[in-house]
Amino acid sequence: MSGHDAIEVISTKRDGDPLTDTQIDWVIDAYTRGDVADEQMSALAMAILLNGMSRPEISRWTNAMIASGERMDFSSLSRPTADKHSTGGVGDKITLPLAPLVAACGVAVPQLSGRGLGHTGGTLDKLEAIPGWRASLTNEEMLRRLEEIGAVICAAGDGLAPADKKLYALRDVTGTVEAIPLIASSIMSKKIAEGTGSLVLDVKVGSGAFMKDEARARELAETMVALGTDAGVHTAALLTDMSTPLGLTAGNGIEVAESVEVLAGGGPEDVVELTLALAREMLAGAGRDDVDPADRLADGSAMDVWRRMIAAQDGDPDAPLPQARESHEVAAPASGVLTRLDAMAVGLAAWRLGAGRARKEDPVQAGAGVVWHARPGDRVREGEPLFTLLTDEPARFERALSALEGGYDVSEDASFEPAPLVIDRIG
Amino acid sequence: MSGHDAIEVISTKRDGDPLTDTQIDWVIDAYTRGDVADEQMSALAMAILLNGMSRPEISRWTNAMIASGERMDFSSLSRPTADKHSTGGVGDKITLPLAPLVAACGVAVPQLSGRGLGHTGGTLDKLEAIPGWRASLTNEEMLRRLEEIGAVICAAGDGLAPADKKLYALRDVTGTVEAIPLIASSIMSKKIAEGTGSLVLDVKVGSGAFMKDEARARELAETMVALGTDAGVHTAALLTDMSTPLGLTAGNGIEVAESVEVLAGGGPEDVVELTLALAREMLAGAGRDDVDPADRLADGSAMDVWRRMIAAQDGDPDAPLPQARESHEVAAPASGVLTRLDAMAVGLAAWRLGAGRARKEDPVQAGAGVVWHARPGDRVREGEPLFTLLTDEPARFERALSALEGGYDVSEDASFEPAPLVIDRIG
Repeated sequence: MSGHDAIEVISTKRDGDPLTDTQIDWVIDAYTRGDVADEQMSALAMAILLNGMSRPEISRWTNAMIASGERMDFSSLSRPTADKHSTGGVGDKITLPLAPLVAACGVAVPQLSGRGLGHTGGTLDKLEAIPGWRASLTNEEMLRRLEEIGAVICAAGDGLAPADKKLYALRDVTGTVEAIPLIASSIMSKKIAEGTGSLVLDVKVGSGAFMKDEARARELAETMVALGTDAGVHTAALLTDMSTPLGLTAGNGIEVAESVEVLAGGGPEDVVELTLALAREMLAGAGRDDVDPADRLADGSAMDVWRRMIAAQDGDPDAPLPQARESHEVAAPASGVLTRLDAMAVGLAAWRLGAGRARKEDPVQAGAGVVWHARPGDRVREGEPLFTLLTDEPARFERALSALEGGYDVSEDASFEPAPLVIDRIG
Repeated sequence: MSGHDAIEVISTKRDGDPLTDTQIDWVIDAYTRGDVADEQMSALAMAILLNGMSRPEISRWTNAMIASGERMDFSSLSRPTADKHSTGGVGDKITLPLAPLVAACGVAVPQLSGRGLGHTGGTLDKLEAIPGWRASLTNEEMLRRLEEIGAVICAAGDGLAPADKKLYALRDVTGTVEAIPLIASSIMSKKIAEGTGSLVLDVKVGSGAFMKDEARARELAETMVALGTDAGVHTAALLTDMSTPLGLTAGNGIEVAESVEVLAGGGPEDVVELTLALAREMLAGAGRDDVDPADRLADGSAMDVWRRMIAAQDGDPDAPLPQARESHEVAAPASGVLTRLDAMAVGLAAWRLGAGRARKEDPVQAGAGVVWHARPGDRVREGEPLFTLLTDEPARFERALSALEGGYDVSEDASFEPAPLVIDRIG
């Protein structure tokens, strides 16, 4: 019987017809229970990738994935909630300063995060560089810390959208990751199940992003905003540039250090700019656009929340961060303006140095990564350090250097203007 | 590594690009060995179904499936060989009279056959209605009988195209059966591995056939003829009508009886016509078009081969065939001309009476089936028997009758002309 129904659902999408509500509800539930086999779901995923899904289908699919697990509820909190999701980029440490900053503005931030896979780092990997810090909290601990401190960054429990967890692992090995309906429903099912009142999406586009192409990134952003809005979550998206890595560091401990600089009122301009832009969206979504987050960076209150947030998860905010045992400098090949710094090249180099992992079960190095000493538009001088590569294992330098090769240009083009960081706002 | 390669192959076809020879060879071999997982192959099968394959890709895919197993070799025989494949239809017992008839004309017929699944019967199921007859032969027994008798109908061994066996079972549960490149390569890999010198394909089109649509049936036929020709097998295809069932019987024992009538020089006109048409193609392919097969039906020599062929596999050609324990007559609802007899309705009724199986492991009833007493174009009289339903289990009549309902028309349209049986020849 179930074999028959699965084939009927697959055939409907294969033949280009829309899936009915009943078909969607059944297939997600049966797949979660194991009554629809992996080989059936992967055929369906490929049919969805090639034949697409309409907005109502994606919305139903998302709801069915939410219904496969538990939903969190923050309605007992005395403050409104706001959450942020990034589609992932190189040097993207924004969650670290952003969550305490928004909390310092009076909005609670329940930030369930993941670990990294491939060339983009994961927020939990970064925070785990802090001595003592632990990612896992019970729901009760999370609620208490949200009420007391205002911001929590922790690992998502297994109870949220288990259908998505199973489907994502399957898509990863069957060439079906890149279906926009499945990407959008995967992200949004988790975010909606988390029970946030408002949500801002940072949809990245460029060489270092999952979406290399602006039109596809825009379609993904529009789809997710519609899904969030349908589910009653105040949702907006920023389309942001990821052809250049964010800030001056890509790694775990070094990105924590850069985030602390931002919280201390300094840090690279682009990281500050994006942190404030996303904070303003979150505050507006939560009805608190009367507060200017820049003030909370300046007055040290965001830093206070950060310290309490880290300490509440057993981290020591004053402990020195782990340092890589080995470093290697790359000098600028000429004098001039840095006109290009490719996010994918930098991300790949950091990954090869040990900052990221190839398989879920691999460890990451807390001290590994890449520091660049100039951003596009900056002047560099021949022979002065342009990159510092960091790792515990010197055998890794060679492959990291080859990843960087061809990943940047220095020229005498005085008219060079860096591309804008925030490309567009959707929602 | 293998996971990475599988995703690369899937992505190539997903993105609409042709698979390279290396990709095809690798993926078939790795799938047979279990290094490519079922969920990866089903995603690839769906991408092939939706994005298609070019003739060179299909040819390479077929060769890779052949290379996954053993190849038979009939070159030691003193006679040329010819084989036939039907895509399956209702009442399609043609292999039974055809194989001994072509052998009686001096061409050896190594007919490796299968069991039925769904509404179309299988040749082995039909022959197994003969008391004592057994389907399994070793390759040596097969060769000896081909030399001594000239015709063998037996089960295909597990050694031929094991990749196809595994892939077919996967397609069956993943909605990917209906990909023409995969259907063509599945059929042709087995037929080419069987080592026949010439091959005729009976590609059926109509309600009772796998292909309901003439354009798709033609595409399948053309693809298979090209594959056979590329492999050095003299190949032709007949496109034949399967909107009406063949002959006057659909079942196991009752189709054997009808086949014996044809071998005795009688039998329904359409069965005789198609048997002779396919025989002429096989003889032409084997270079023996100097012989007229009609003579061999008339002179009893085809019947002699049949009797020896059955006896050589321990069957008793003189034993009475098993009879169903229960029968039910359906009377003509009006007087007039039978203007429509739907092959799918009849096939489904026979299947529900116990002649076919729903799962590979189900048994079939030797005596079950449907006999119809008129063919389209024949006059019928109100109240006289139009169908006889046969089964060992009377509880099955009700669902069989509901399958037949609406499956035939009787009218006073005197100008009615039955559709031609052979629609076209390709090759």
